[in-house]
Amino acid sequence: MKTASKDQPLKIAVAGLGTVGAGLLRLAEKHASLLEDRSGRPILVTAVSARDRNKNRGVSLDGMAWFDDPVAMAARADADVVVELIGGSDGIARQFCETALGNAKHVVTANKALLAHHGTELALVAEEAGVTLAFEAAVAGGIPIIKSLREGLAGNPIRRIYGILNGTCNYILTAMHKYSHEFNDVLKEAQKQGYAEADPGFDVDGIDTAHKLAILASMAFGARVNFDGVYVEGIRHVSLTDIRFARELGYRIKLLGTALLTNEGVEQRVHPCMVPLDSPIAHVEGVFNAVVADGDFSGTIIHEGCGAGAGPTASAVAADLVDIARGHSTPTFSIPAKELKSLPASPLEHRTGPYYIRLMVVDRPGVFADVAAALGRHDVSMESVIQRARAPGEQVPVVMIIHDTREDRMAAALADIGGLEAVVEPPRMIRIESF
Amino acid sequence: MKTASKDQPLKIAVAGLGTVGAGLLRLAEKHASLLEDRSGRPILVTAVSARDRNKNRGVSLDGMAWFDDPVAMAARADADVVVELIGGSDGIARQFCETALGNAKHVVTANKALLAHHGTELALVAEEAGVTLAFEAAVAGGIPIIKSLREGLAGNPIRRIYGILNGTCNYILTAMHKYSHEFNDVLKEAQKQGYAEADPGFDVDGIDTAHKLAILASMAFGARVNFDGVYVEGIRHVSLTDIRFARELGYRIKLLGTALLTNEGVEQRVHPCMVPLDSPIAHVEGVFNAVVADGDFSGTIIHEGCGAGAGPTASAVAADLVDIARGHSTPTFSIPAKELKSLPASPLEHRTGPYYIRLMVVDRPGVFADVAAALGRHDVSMESVIQRARAPGEQVPVVMIIHDTREDRMAAALADIGGLEAVVEPPRMIRIESF
Repeated sequence: MKTASKDQPLKIAVAGLGTVGAGLLRLAEKHASLLEDRSGRPILVTAVSARDRNKNRGVSLDGMAWFDDPVAMAARADADVVVELIGGSDGIARQFCETALGNAKHVVTANKALLAHHGTELALVAEEAGVTLAFEAAVAGGIPIIKSLREGLAGNPIRRIYGILNGTCNYILTAMHKYSHEFNDVLKEAQKQGYAEADPGFDVDGIDTAHKLAILASMAFGARVNFDGVYVEGIRHVSLTDIRFARELGYRIKLLGTALLTNEGVEQRVHPCMVPLDSPIAHVEGVFNAVVADGDFSGTIIHEGCGAGAGPTASAVAADLVDIARGHSTPTFSIPAKELKSLPASPLEHRTGPYYIRLMVVDRPGVFADVAAALGRHDVSMESVIQRARAPGEQVPVVMIIHDTREDRMAAALADIGGLEAVVEPPRMIRIESF
Repeated sequence: MKTASKDQPLKIAVAGLGTVGAGLLRLAEKHASLLEDRSGRPILVTAVSARDRNKNRGVSLDGMAWFDDPVAMAARADADVVVELIGGSDGIARQFCETALGNAKHVVTANKALLAHHGTELALVAEEAGVTLAFEAAVAGGIPIIKSLREGLAGNPIRRIYGILNGTCNYILTAMHKYSHEFNDVLKEAQKQGYAEADPGFDVDGIDTAHKLAILASMAFGARVNFDGVYVEGIRHVSLTDIRFARELGYRIKLLGTALLTNEGVEQRVHPCMVPLDSPIAHVEGVFNAVVADGDFSGTIIHEGCGAGAGPTASAVAADLVDIARGHSTPTFSIPAKELKSLPASPLEHRTGPYYIRLMVVDRPGVFADVAAALGRHDVSMESVIQRARAPGEQVPVVMIIHDTREDRMAAALADIGGLEAVVEPPRMIRIESF
């Protein structure tokens, strides 16, 4: 186990000086004495690497060695720890981390894509080398959920963990609800405000949430990170009509990442959910994130806070640095990487739960009988139905709440219903979660 | 620094085998292999002490040394760590902890009263002896808030921390709101259900909340624990009438503990608050606890969960044990005890904020003019007023929302108003917090 001498400063090399990197340098400068009080030693940034040396970042790089090539910095910088803020699941970021670990340097990263794809392998390398791979900043920004799962709830098997893990999606869904705007209008506004990227797919299609979920699931269940085992569905198909029906029915629509242990393995899924208003997660608004973990002794524990941005991310990186400065070392994913289980992905088809279904139908005699017959054929039973504004021959929404049903039967019934001539759009389905 | 050899089991002696102690033994037995995976070594209970050796606790004491006298156990048991679950701010609990620290044993305790009164002194002794004093279980049960403040938010100065810290009070206030019952009726019911003690003063008079708040404030601000500096007001005076007006005005009434840094020092206060419905804390119901910390980089971070009970408390103790087993050692109150600041108590009289005021008045001409004159004399201005059901000569409630006002001026105005002949009860005042 490598631990730098405890009366020496802990030396840090930072790769990537965008918003988050600059935020970290600001934190390290502004709170140098707090970090030293808490670590028992100074934490010094000794080297940096970024694309443009001369860009004004509002922080001084004086006294820091400059590297044009981050990988060269990972190999050669006079540093105990490297911080990876480059991003991307492969390429430079991965090479940077592997090089640092290969040179017995601790790695702190905010890179969820990298960890979702290569987390287990990197953890094996780090633990073999006796250095730390830490990533509090990779999930839910400033919320210390990784530490809580790895340490604060260490006495608890966690059987289920779920949360709102993407601030962009939550901002969009909140705005649709609050201002009654359609998805595309809110997305455009969010892009203008800087809450959404020009290419929003990573966020709104659920991929970012899936990355974070795969990391949380590994940590919670002591299993190898299995991003490929995550079912992913984004929020593009959520319409204002659905948001309004949700409100009327006493629900809110949230994009949740959910991971749970089943008899078959681990079920990991990302999709819009209807959650009841009295659920603690229903009131998490705007860019906030929240993570709910169910421990067998601790009970339900909820963490909530700002899920992104320079300040929260820098705070999370700083916490990891303080741990390393203190000489603390914990297995990367809560148990040693070589003991992480390979749990099979539990098929979503076997999930059982209630559903919200919305059909757009041409209102004419017999339509509803056809829909009911399709449900009946697949043994799917309806709890309630809303149909209003009957205008013969016109398109009207028909909303049904479906009793607990297995996903594969629901899908088969929807395929039949989608084939009916009077059903003019593909049926919309949103899973209901009564946490 | 004492660290038991890392390939040996960590040996634990537990004092106090009530609900929580039995819960801890159950956890240690049921999750022995999880604890070993996470610690890198077995965690074994080697000795116990309680009042009655023969009581059936549903757990086996086989293989554990029995001590009638916990203090003798602290001195002589073959253990690396003692766990104190006896309770009380002085007497046996204190003697037990001091003896253990004096014998270079780590101490894990759930005892908030002890820490609120003697936390700084015990931390000094522990750090001098090079052992750990850990107390995740002392605040907010299974919620890992102590670890989050000490480690997860280590890069952040915290300027304010507040929360719902007593499950009994929150249960009572929730039930009053939900079922429209008066305080005394709900208290009786809570006592029947086991949510309140036969002598409920410790909880409903706010003392338990104040203990926890003093610990949180020390941790958040790097200051010596100052229980005597906490202003404490309980919930006995909250009536169903107030609960109903709160609902009508868009608020919920919660007993909050609040600590913040001011220009004068640390303001620590426990009292019922009206919080707006869109505040995250407004929806924390029943026996749940929640803690909100405002970090300068992290932003607002909220932790929520079950604040008491055998399972959550055992979970918190187990997390501390895993830290010790891993050889992790962190300054007790986040920075070394000898560097904790002595911050003066900031006087509540200087707090400025809005207020809810309820008067019971005999409705006759001129009453309201007298009330308004009293407010005016102290430069207190009203935002709104509710007076209904005018029945000349009868008692009616008059509710006023007061604009931001300094506490001492508000108190002076209320003293004048209370002296008016037509005001038939002492005026009720509940502070409004717009977090």
